[in-house]
Amino acid sequence: MTKIKVGVLGATGSVGQRFVQLLDGHPWFELESLFASERSAGKKYRDVSKWFLPSEMPAEAAEMVVQSLNDVDTSENEDIAIMFSALPGSVASEVEKRCAQAGYCVASNVSVHRMEPDVPLIIPEINADHLALIEVQKEKRGWDGFIITNPNCSTIVMALSLKPLMRYGIKEVRVSTMQAVSGAGYAGVPSMAILDNVIPFIESEEDKMESEPLKILGTVEKEGSGIKNAAFNVCASCHRVPVMDGHTEAIWVKFKEGVTEEEAKKAFKDFTTDIKTPFAPEKPIILREEQDRPQPRLDRDAGRGMSVSVGRVRAGRMENEVKYIAQGHNTVRGAAGASILNAEVLVARKYV
Amino acid sequence: MTKIKVGVLGATGSVGQRFVQLLDGHPWFELESLFASERSAGKKYRDVSKWFLPSEMPAEAAEMVVQSLNDVDTSENEDIAIMFSALPGSVASEVEKRCAQAGYCVASNVSVHRMEPDVPLIIPEINADHLALIEVQKEKRGWDGFIITNPNCSTIVMALSLKPLMRYGIKEVRVSTMQAVSGAGYAGVPSMAILDNVIPFIESEEDKMESEPLKILGTVEKEGSGIKNAAFNVCASCHRVPVMDGHTEAIWVKFKEGVTEEEAKKAFKDFTTDIKTPFAPEKPIILREEQDRPQPRLDRDAGRGMSVSVGRVRAGRMENEVKYIAQGHNTVRGAAGASILNAEVLVARKYV
Amino acid sequence: MTKIKVGVLGATGSVGQRFVQLLDGHPWFELESLFASERSAGKKYRDVSKWFLPSEMPAEAAEMVVQSLNDVDTSENEDIAIMFSALPGSVASEVEKRCAQAGYCVASNVSVHRMEPDVPLIIPEINADHLALIEVQKEKRGWDGFIITNPNCSTIVMALSLKPLMRYGIKEVRVSTMQAVSGAGYAGVPSMAILDNVIPFIESEEDKMESEPLKILGTVEKEGSGIKNAAFNVCASCHRVPVMDGHTEAIWVKFKEGVTEEEAKKAFKDFTTDIKTPFAPEKPIILREEQDRPQPRLDRDAGRGMSVSVGRVRAGRMENEVKYIAQGHNTVRGAAGASILNAEVLVARKYV
Amino acid sequence: MTKIKVGVLGATGSVGQRFVQLLDGHPWFELESLFASERSAGKKYRDVSKWFLPSEMPAEAAEMVVQSLNDVDTSENEDIAIMFSALPGSVASEVEKRCAQAGYCVASNVSVHRMEPDVPLIIPEINADHLALIEVQKEKRGWDGFIITNPNCSTIVMALSLKPLMRYGIKEVRVSTMQAVSGAGYAGVPSMAILDNVIPFIESEEDKMESEPLKILGTVEKEGSGIKNAAFNVCASCHRVPVMDGHTEAIWVKFKEGVTEEEAKKAFKDFTTDIKTPFAPEKPIILREEQDRPQPRLDRDAGRGMSVSVGRVRAGRMENEVKYIAQGHNTVRGAAGASILNAEVLVARKYV
Repeated sequence: MTKIKVGVLGATGSVGQRFVQLLDGHPWFELESLFASERSAGKKYRDVSKWFLPSEMPAEAAEMVVQSLNDVDTSENEDIAIMFSALPGSVASEVEKRCAQAGYCVASNVSVHRMEPDVPLIIPEINADHLALIEVQKEKRGWDGFIITNPNCSTIVMALSLKPLMRYGIKEVRVSTMQAVSGAGYAGVPSMAILDNVIPFIESEEDKMESEPLKILGTVEKEGSGIKNAAFNVCASCHRVPVMDGHTEAIWVKFKEGVTEEEAKKAFKDFTTDIKTPFAPEKPIILREEQDRPQPRLDRDAGRGMSVSVGRVRAGRMENEVKYIAQGHNTVRGAAGASILNAEVLVARKYV
Repeated sequence: MTKIKVGVLGATGSVGQRFVQLLDGHPWFELESLFASERSAGKKYRDVSKWFLPSEMPAEAAEMVVQSLNDVDTSENEDIAIMFSALPGSVASEVEKRCAQAGYCVASNVSVHRMEPDVPLIIPEINADHLALIEVQKEKRGWDGFIITNPNCSTIVMALSLKPLMRYGIKEVRVSTMQAVSGAGYAGVPSMAILDNVIPFIESEEDKMESEPLKILGTVEKEGSGIKNAAFNVCASCHRVPVMDGHTEAIWVKFKEGVTEEEAKKAFKDFTTDIKTPFAPEKPIILREEQDRPQPRLDRDAGRGMSVSVGRVRAGRMENEVKYIAQGHNTVRGAAGASILNAEVLVARKYV
Repeated sequence: MTKIKVGVLGATGSVGQRFVQLLDGHPWFELESLFASERSAGKKYRDVSKWFLPSEMPAEAAEMVVQSLNDVDTSENEDIAIMFSALPGSVASEVEKRCAQAGYCVASNVSVHRMEPDVPLIIPEINADHLALIEVQKEKRGWDGFIITNPNCSTIVMALSLKPLMRYGIKEVRVSTMQAVSGAGYAGVPSMAILDNVIPFIESEEDKMESEPLKILGTVEKEGSGIKNAAFNVCASCHRVPVMDGHTEAIWVKFKEGVTEEEAKKAFKDFTTDIKTPFAPEKPIILREEQDRPQPRLDRDAGRGMSVSVGRVRAGRMENEVKYIAQGHNTVRGAAGASILNAEVLVARKYV
Repeated sequence: MTKIKVGVLGATGSVGQRFVQLLDGHPWFELESLFASERSAGKKYRDVSKWFLPSEMPAEAAEMVVQSLNDVDTSENEDIAIMFSALPGSVASEVEKRCAQAGYCVASNVSVHRMEPDVPLIIPEINADHLALIEVQKEKRGWDGFIITNPNCSTIVMALSLKPLMRYGIKEVRVSTMQAVSGAGYAGVPSMAILDNVIPFIESEEDKMESEPLKILGTVEKEGSGIKNAAFNVCASCHRVPVMDGHTEAIWVKFKEGVTEEEAKKAFKDFTTDIKTPFAPEKPIILREEQDRPQPRLDRDAGRGMSVSVGRVRAGRMENEVKYIAQGHNTVRGAAGASILNAEVLVARKYV
């Protein structure tokens, strides 16, 4: 099998580095080009990207000459099929649209297009069928390519855990997060802000957690013209804690009818997926039975960082309510890995 | 005014040290004796207590010879009026009862007697009237002295913040905590357990948070024979984070009717107290208007550690619900300082 | 006594905030003006300075309108006698010179002028006599005012500890630092860089530690025309650790002749000072006898942050060598507090 | 090839868990038995060992029934050839001797026997020839088996880095460590002791760093009867920092003659080894050229945790002196991995 050539938009940042790391040795994809701002263009990746991941910078990527985002649609890059986007919000919309117009499939981790009605917001184990929006999007926008997106890191962890519970009829969801600093990018959280501290605020995070899951857990409308949102409310409180990687979330789910602790556990345990691409974890949800798990340091790398760990499932004091803890790796399952998994599913389903 | 002589039971541990620190220079109380296990008895406090607070060990306490808990009721100690208890749960019940029988007023930070019907569980700004139980207790048990208690650290922070909201009719409370390591005592949380990590479990903590506030916010029954619990449910999820001092709590309060963000803020802002003893903070509740406060590192010492800071008050997505963040110093407001404030109120109201 | 009016240059940064905090309520000085870059000029201090110190922003400073650095020498500011400088290196030289020319006494925490031959580099307990350079400076440069400086934070801690050992004849000094993140300013060390980590490099720090102490511990030359450096070598290795405040330094001192552990301890214990101004600590050096002190969390606030704590004094395995640990608060003793102490000595000795 | 059966003494502690983790899937060794104190004996490993490593507890080990240390020499265990020892110091000597007498090869991480003249203290890339002491030991003690040891974690990192420099004639070594909390075992360092702090003292650590390297870098005496120590002095200052894994060491090496920065770098770069067993890293020493490396979070897992990273090599201010930073994984290269590598070399050289 010839590998599919891919590029990374915004390759020097925190999520960009994760893309470069995770694409190294990928069985289906071959990293062909790295794109960043003018400032980095024309220089070797090793010289413009201060690598902060524990593993070494992949040798091939290190020697690549970074290209300007302006050159993303030049003929030199016409071999590329998929563009992974880790762009800063300020430039993401323009560049991603230009890429889609130029015929690329854009698999984006950026929030800017997520909630547009004709843009798929995908967690493959939940809603791969939402990829049907691609045709709508291409037609409506007159593009040769298209944009698909994955949700916000904290949304992915929660939404995956909600999926198996949907069968019982969810009425309300409350979530309190304890989020890792890597979610804010390399310079996002100064050490003086977070050492020996909790910051009970993350810009826009609660909005995302309250809106994105409803689209993801929604259903494709008859005509395929859009998504009908799931019919429950999410209310989020988001907080940053001194943890490097791994978001931990305390979740309360109120159901329409009574659900026991055992039923909820069974739902988590029984959850399977037909997604079998390279980055798909064997178990999207791992149920922990220990009284003090999941913990980010111990569980974030489960399923090579692609599994969400769920634990402390227990009936609460409220009627028809279950509470539990969910944990997932925010820059793997919650960002770069999510986009790569999405791209794999595009390939598996012949969208690329 | 002659100072009232006091003792500290369990003086060498984490909360014991806070008692010793906070009692140093107290305008009403004079630290007379320190009590600990057999192992420490007969030795100087400086030699048996590995001091871990930033300020120096008070010079007078340092030279005191620690007494055995067995000698708590000997004639040598008959000048003492108040015994502060920071005993480990295993021995607390027996020793505290012996002290009460011997005529001491026991102001205890320990959980063991908190929920007994004739034991006051006090946060003075909320329920100083519950001290009426003292007479019931003395009569029923035939003791010369008595036991009063303060709540668990995480309960105090939440209960204080709930008090001003009671006027609107609370229906349900959900709380997710991010608790400091000092709450578990000096050796309670190994660094290997918590560095770069969150532990989503604290033994018995959720039970305490779900039961204690209902007693505290309850009302003294007609005959003074007991407390009628407040009539709402609390559902807690408790978590440990890498923070030295200061518990942060994300709280959702559902009301019987609609309450606006502004009404909730006003309630917090208007909250005053008639408790005017030395340890009573000028403002039991400080409302922060910044979008990212309160934070434990910045707010735990507010009101010399005795104020609870509240912020991010906002209407949630759920009907009749407000969410906010509360923060308080767990070993000052939440433990030793709480017991001392209780004892001051005992004095002010002539119970001692 | 009428208070002396002072200003702070670079008031919004990490050290600038410490100046504002420490000057609040100062018995001799009255904070008159705050200066910062164009971007902040014309706005209230509370609106342009993200306060990150545990105590509240002083109320008066909060309401001050920040002035542009360009306006530092306007007539509006002619009441000011002393300008404290916490400027970024890039603009410090020009602004400080302009201030000195305009007649201010500049007490600077910035490195740019420290090593100039006619600029006093002062730790008052060591070398207040170096203030004699002020006259040389004023004459040479034709300024009405002048510039004095305090050393780098890590230098101050070490130099203070070396002073009492000078009597034994120092031959060589090696120092390995474990420095707090606050030394790099608010955004200086990203949490992703330092959580669960050590960074064994701090830009220019080793150079400063190897050169500044020799000037400080040097002697004023006969004609008063300059400083004759102390005649030993310092070799430094500087490292950042996940600590908020307080630099810890492991120091080896090789002497010309044998010095015992007891002699070294005695030198530290006997060290006194005739500096008796408000910020001068009662004990510039506190000798700790515990086997595991000093520690930054426990000792940084000793002497209200102005004392250096020394401990673990012991003979090493090398001939004529003693090793020990020194610790001091890097933004109080090591920065803003150092400049304020210097300014106090200027006042006490009638230079202002 | 039939795998060699091995046991782990002290299997439930911090280093014991690392043995169990690292032996899982080992190509030469098969984990046969786990030994611990009476308290754990007779129970499944999963039930007595609170696993705190990020990877899952190996499934086979989890189901093993832990044996008492008293039963280490029963016939049931006679298939075992090698006993890895992670015993607490208090029982190590007796149990290890009993094992050696019973015919096992004991590969010990414990300090108790390290400095005995007939016990090899081995870092294979340095002194595999010291294994010649085994015959001396067996004969002298009349044992069927024998004991070999690996050094203390902080010694291993330093000693490996010193080896290539030996060619230039080392005169003196000074070392300042910044050590990870895992070196003290799971409950060794309370979080209240180390959060936002440095502890400048580790029991016995400086003694070990000052004595062990001289034996390791020494030479087997003619008759093979013992080791002639290397002829230089080491002077250590040891400190604990808030890092999970990975010891960082600032090292000054004074040579008999001048050595340039380039010569030192070349020595590190050229260092190779003929040890080619499974746990031997391709490069025992990795030279980093970046100005801010090595760092524990980024470099501890280099060479699967078995490489020592060296960086910031630079001439100091002192004559004939070079300073640099060395970093290594304290529980892999510095403990369990060290013992396993030693055992592999025993096999490769037919001692087992």
